[in-house]
Amino acid sequence: MTLEQIIDAQKRIAPHIIKTPLVPIERLQSILGFVPWLKLENMQNIGAFKIRGAMNAALLLSQEDIDRGFITASSGNHGRAVAYAAKALGTKALILLPNTVSRAKLEGIQALGAQTRLVEPQKRIEIALDVAQKEGLTFIHPYNDENVICGQGSLGLEIMAQLPGVKRILVPMGGGGLISGIALAVKFSRPEIEIIGLEPAAVPKFSQNIRSETIHSVKEFPSIADALLSNKPGSIPLVVARKYVDRIISVEEGPLKEAYRLLLQEGKIYCEPSSAIGFGAVLQGEFRSSEMEDSVFLISGGNILPEMISAIIE
Amino acid sequence: MTLEQIIDAQKRIAPHIIKTPLVPIERLQSILGFVPWLKLENMQNIGAFKIRGAMNAALLLSQEDIDRGFITASSGNHGRAVAYAAKALGTKALILLPNTVSRAKLEGIQALGAQTRLVEPQKRIEIALDVAQKEGLTFIHPYNDENVICGQGSLGLEIMAQLPGVKRILVPMGGGGLISGIALAVKFSRPEIEIIGLEPAAVPKFSQNIRSETIHSVKEFPSIADALLSNKPGSIPLVVARKYVDRIISVEEGPLKEAYRLLLQEGKIYCEPSSAIGFGAVLQGEFRSSEMEDSVFLISGGNILPEMISAIIE
Repeated sequence: MTLEQIIDAQKRIAPHIIKTPLVPIERLQSILGFVPWLKLENMQNIGAFKIRGAMNAALLLSQEDIDRGFITASSGNHGRAVAYAAKALGTKALILLPNTVSRAKLEGIQALGAQTRLVEPQKRIEIALDVAQKEGLTFIHPYNDENVICGQGSLGLEIMAQLPGVKRILVPMGGGGLISGIALAVKFSRPEIEIIGLEPAAVPKFSQNIRSETIHSVKEFPSIADALLSNKPGSIPLVVARKYVDRIISVEEGPLKEAYRLLLQEGKIYCEPSSAIGFGAVLQGEFRSSEMEDSVFLISGGNILPEMISAIIE
Repeated sequence: MTLEQIIDAQKRIAPHIIKTPLVPIERLQSILGFVPWLKLENMQNIGAFKIRGAMNAALLLSQEDIDRGFITASSGNHGRAVAYAAKALGTKALILLPNTVSRAKLEGIQALGAQTRLVEPQKRIEIALDVAQKEGLTFIHPYNDENVICGQGSLGLEIMAQLPGVKRILVPMGGGGLISGIALAVKFSRPEIEIIGLEPAAVPKFSQNIRSETIHSVKEFPSIADALLSNKPGSIPLVVARKYVDRIISVEEGPLKEAYRLLLQEGKIYCEPSSAIGFGAVLQGEFRSSEMEDSVFLISGGNILPEMISAIIE
């Protein structure tokens, strides 16, 4: 992957995405000791950054592959993005979701006209590959795909343009597509900007694989970060992370939950629990506040029903 | 009141307030038919615009009046603003609140070190005036005060600077201090910009008093707009509204509740129910979407606990 591919992706997807606000949240200064910048991808089209990668991948397919219809496996947001891309391109989509999927995510996908099927969470990708072959559908991988990664990379370009003084970007890690795209866009152009990856300590797939020769699945424990529960990193993202991610932090559920409440109640940010993980790392004591000026926290998505929020933070 | 007074207020309060983001919410276009601009005073210091007026009034007091301590009556946000001003100026504060006050608002005020007292909602101002006299405290009126109004007026200046092409500002009306300040700032400098006031139809104090010779209290019905329940307009705001507010709309509870869900779930805006009233007017069918470009919706506050939201929209 090259910087040119990411710049091309940014142009390609521009008509389909929102240039989301990047805003300083001064209200949090008294609690955190610094003013964080938030990149609000919860306000993105389909309610999450995933449309960037899915749309880039879809637009690069042949008309024949588009006409066959799309299939993917997703914790929800990538599925919604693929459903959106299918609708925009006039084709059908089948989205495989974990049987634990939230109502907001399931209904959002169905509203776009896609078919859905609920499967066992950690087997969803292999099932999807199998169905793709049997039913002749075009599979769009949620993270282990260069075109998807370049689409997510548009976020790195956008952040650097919106805040030229940015020193550090904190990025949630699921399968690793988002952080790969951002890291490549940033390190290819301004390598001094620090890229920090955040994973739930309940599913520490990156920290446990970053130095191993083969990729293994990690044992999972429950986490409120429903978008970050893949139990192994994608092979492409793992290569990118080894080379371009400066630091990986595993965030415990306690600080993550506290951070989610903080982001809602004090930050006034309407988002998914997974989006709070950067602040979870801060509350876990991973940073000196004096070094956190000009840090951007990626708010990855906002697909949660208002009535579900209280159950998560109680 | 003059434009100069409002400009002076803006400078005076600048060190104490946040220049809040004014952002277009493109996600709402498919539902509303236009892209609304939101002025995010839910992200203001103390979680609501009220700090602007209260701080301006407090900073204009004599040291003697400051030392006596502050008292006010408030549905919550002005009380929090006065508590904040008292703390900033090193004096005490007593805040009278309706016995129906939300926990978020009560606890926010107590956390600033102010004393609180719960009273009957519609008698809170006369009780406060009485206590002020008996206990020798300095009363800071929530809306019927020129210095408070000039402080809120800083919002009008800020919006015009942030979006020079603004055509219309939609403002929630409680006692009327906010809309007075904004209307004066705007009409003194750019009279072609339309100012639209929104009140709950459950408490239609402005529409029922705008043409009458004396001010009378209106009969109230329940409303989710807890910050807009004063049952009569302030005398100063009423004079301002007669002259400078282009249109007053009473918004029914049905569209208001629907608008609140829309703002949370689709707009991804974490705010109080009262802040949704402009969108309530849109859903009530008060505007043609083709004429709503460059309209700013004032999101007045965000002081609500996450766990209370679901009870309101169910």
